[in-house]
Amino acid sequence: MIKARVTVTLKNGVLDPQGKAIEGALGTLGFSGVGEVRQGKVFDLEIDSTDKAAAETDLRAMCEKLLANTVIENYAISIG
Amino acid sequence: MIKARVTVTLKNGVLDPQGKAIEGALGTLGFSGVGEVRQGKVFDLEIDSTDKAAAETDLRAMCEKLLANTVIENYAISIG
Repeated sequence: MIKARVTVTLKNGVLDPQGKAIEGALGTLGFSGVGEVRQGKVFDLEIDSTDKAAAETDLRAMCEKLLANTVIENYAISIG
Repeated sequence: MIKARVTVTLKNGVLDPQGKAIEGALGTLGFSGVGEVRQGKVFDLEIDSTDKAAAETDLRAMCEKLLANTVIENYAISIG
């Protein structure tokens, strides 16, 4: 079994109101010196296979089709 | 300026209906061999400081107070 982590983040230049809200909330809580905050998603998947190359191909397809909106989001896959 | 990434994931045993929905959707899309899927959150923060130790202390406090619900979520901080 392969464990993989897919991290999906907004592309540069895409507005992130949720991140801005967190930035504001951290300021309100007294944390100074916090610059930009951007929020993304992480998916931990278990793949029933031992072929890492095939798993990565599958994961890339899953990202393109479901996990990420590639118009506005980047994705990164880490296997291990 | 320090760039940090905070990853917040559900603790083991906590139900993850969103992850289950993604698991089902991946099956429907024809991806076989996908085991458990769990979804989490990732925060990319910029800290206006050069002191990594102080930044990590601050980030830990941010997680405890705002970014993670430590009753049901774990958090991991990576700086660099």
